Amino acid sequence: MMADQKRIYQDIETLRKISEPCAFGTQRPSYTPEYREGVEYVKKRMEEFGLEVREDTVGNLFGVIRGTDPQAASIISGSHLDSVKCSGAFDGIAGVICALEAARMIQESKEPLRHTFEVLGTVGEEGTRFGQVLIGSQFMEGSFGEQELDRFKGLEDGISLRDAIHNYGLSGDPAGAYRRNDKVKAFIELHAEQGPILENAGKSIGIVENIVAISWLEVEVHGLASHPGTIPMDCRQDAGIGAFRLICQVNQYATAHYNGVATITTGRLNLLPGSTNCIPSECDFTLDIRTCDEDARADLIRYTMETARRVAEESRVGIDVREAVHRESIPTDSHIEDLVEQAAGKLGYSSMRMNSGAGHDAMIFKRIWNSGMIFLPSHNGLTHHPDELVSYDDMEKGANVLYQVIRMLDEEE
Amino acid sequence: MMADQKRIYQDIETLRKISEPCAFGTQRPSYTPEYREGVEYVKKRMEEFGLEVREDTVGNLFGVIRGTDPQAASIISGSHLDSVKCSGAFDGIAGVICALEAARMIQESKEPLRHTFEVLGTVGEEGTRFGQVLIGSQFMEGSFGEQELDRFKGLEDGISLRDAIHNYGLSGDPAGAYRRNDKVKAFIELHAEQGPILENAGKSIGIVENIVAISWLEVEVHGLASHPGTIPMDCRQDAGIGAFRLICQVNQYATAHYNGVATITTGRLNLLPGSTNCIPSECDFTLDIRTCDEDARADLIRYTMETARRVAEESRVGIDVREAVHRESIPTDSHIEDLVEQAAGKLGYSSMRMNSGAGHDAMIFKRIWNSGMIFLPSHNGLTHHPDELVSYDDMEKGANVLYQVIRMLDEEE
Repeated sequence: MMADQKRIYQDIETLRKISEPCAFGTQRPSYTPEYREGVEYVKKRMEEFGLEVREDTVGNLFGVIRGTDPQAASIISGSHLDSVKCSGAFDGIAGVICALEAARMIQESKEPLRHTFEVLGTVGEEGTRFGQVLIGSQFMEGSFGEQELDRFKGLEDGISLRDAIHNYGLSGDPAGAYRRNDKVKAFIELHAEQGPILENAGKSIGIVENIVAISWLEVEVHGLASHPGTIPMDCRQDAGIGAFRLICQVNQYATAHYNGVATITTGRLNLLPGSTNCIPSECDFTLDIRTCDEDARADLIRYTMETARRVAEESRVGIDVREAVHRESIPTDSHIEDLVEQAAGKLGYSSMRMNSGAGHDAMIFKRIWNSGMIFLPSHNGLTHHPDELVSYDDMEKGANVLYQVIRMLDEEE
Repeated sequence: MMADQKRIYQDIETLRKISEPCAFGTQRPSYTPEYREGVEYVKKRMEEFGLEVREDTVGNLFGVIRGTDPQAASIISGSHLDSVKCSGAFDGIAGVICALEAARMIQESKEPLRHTFEVLGTVGEEGTRFGQVLIGSQFMEGSFGEQELDRFKGLEDGISLRDAIHNYGLSGDPAGAYRRNDKVKAFIELHAEQGPILENAGKSIGIVENIVAISWLEVEVHGLASHPGTIPMDCRQDAGIGAFRLICQVNQYATAHYNGVATITTGRLNLLPGSTNCIPSECDFTLDIRTCDEDARADLIRYTMETARRVAEESRVGIDVREAVHRESIPTDSHIEDLVEQAAGKLGYSSMRMNSGAGHDAMIFKRIWNSGMIFLPSHNGLTHHPDELVSYDDMEKGANVLYQVIRMLDEEE
């Protein structure tokens, strides 16, 4: 049995066009009419191939093929159905459609599985609408309950998650999504790499070993506002210059010592008062550190603290650094890693072991189930961008590997 | 005749308390009820000492002592009556109150001037309310007319300058403010230095020789947005890092080569998309360059352009630099400079020649009249800050110098 690239193409390109009006690309935030339209398309495709369709109470979508042994635990594969703003067509969806393709191959093979197989499309994985990521998977896993339904509010419309789910036509009852107690043999998430590593290495299949640890360092620089023309350069207390120096030095250090091992990024920075004709009095920004190497994380935090002290003195400013988020790295299931490697080998596809720099639903499901991930190459490493592309040849390979892994899991005792 | 420090203190501290409600300090934007209250206080003090009070059609305030020779040109001294937000008590007001004190000394001396002397309090010098500086002086000088009354809108209330002036109770007729054709012998503006140069040098009186040239370089850095965890450090196109490197290098160059000669400042900077978990795709900011040395300006612009090209290559981003504002430096009147120096010497006050890093009404009046400036030390160089302080000893010295300069000007043919 081999995957049908045309079916995959049709599904991805159809879903690409189901989008809220936006500047460019595809935009399908959770619980919107366009999200519903995307779900209905996937449901229809599931039904066409004889899958049993089910939506849970918070909006996670399942397409089920019952196994021949009703006692056997489920095998689940999928990813998320929602998108960021002005997104491409692969982030999340690639994993749902490849799992759907694997299900189609199972149906067409006429060799039913002993285990039940479930195609999963999670809801609310991206933080686009509520500023909170991994919503659907955390209802399934049980970290989220009644409280979260009221706590999360739409970033733009202020509507509570509870009301958004009600308006979408579901009850939101956490019990109806909870699956911690279910028997599940394995969860496998296929996803675009969202980086350039596979493409640069010329490999088709990424075998994820770890999902990165994250630290968010919140930095505040305190200077003294003043007129830009009247204070000589050597006696300024310019909070912006203090911040920029610290960011540049930490960036340089991470590039020199931890390239390919750790990342450090400043995506958010505010200057106050923020006028062209005022020396900044305050600057606050975040340093996002990601790595699977705990020594690298510790060293980057140490270097940031030490550099902050030195820059503060040199730049005559105060600098406070606080670790606001500290998340451990999450290893994926080593047995699934081995199966993915064997499947790729059997199919003659090149593969490599790697880490995931991004968080995924698999890291939530890892808390309750044996969970693994398959990465596919992202062209130019682009993601969260309309030009995001996983080649359809690689999508086909991904579906084939996934099918083989499901078969291997199914054949185990 | 010597200045009376107590009167100066009373006026400054009374005006400090006339403020819109604000977080801290004094806030008296033009054409507000609080601005009117400040003007009424100054009017009352002018009248107490026998000055003839006049408000022109756009709100500039005059307190006039008629000279004995009706043919003789006017001598005018003053500064602005409006304030920035959460300001101190000296910026602008110091010059109005020292001119008022000089007028009081003239009255008390019983030796009338041959020339008419006018105390001036200009309106709208700060850009606080309309985003436009030097409004009152430019109606007097004639650059502003009917068009500007409609063009400028309140930054917060959207009200036109014309309506704001009407609501304030004045006609706004440009002809009633225009003074280009009037005979004026000299304009002298006393102002807080707004920097640390006089205090650091231990001098009481600053003799301004030039008001700085200004260039605003608008810089746009173009990178590629991506996930902060998935792109290795050495293949990012991080628009923020490109911007921070350029700013740091230009800052370092200016400090090393032009300390005390030129300033370069980034007070405004935007990162896009601006999320903690996204590598910035775009960064735009302004470099404010100020100097009286044309070679320094040219070299700083050249170095910025050259460094932008180098940083763009090193950081894999695009950088566009555009000079959006280019203003020449404005020399003040050399005869007035000499008189200020002589007056300070006669009174036994230390003085030094210096440049103004900030723009002032004097630079508008220089277009039509012989204009000069006297600077007084700003404690710790603070300005646009509630703790802004010119010591009352220095305020007294400033009023004494101003009085002597007026007398010297009056005794000339």
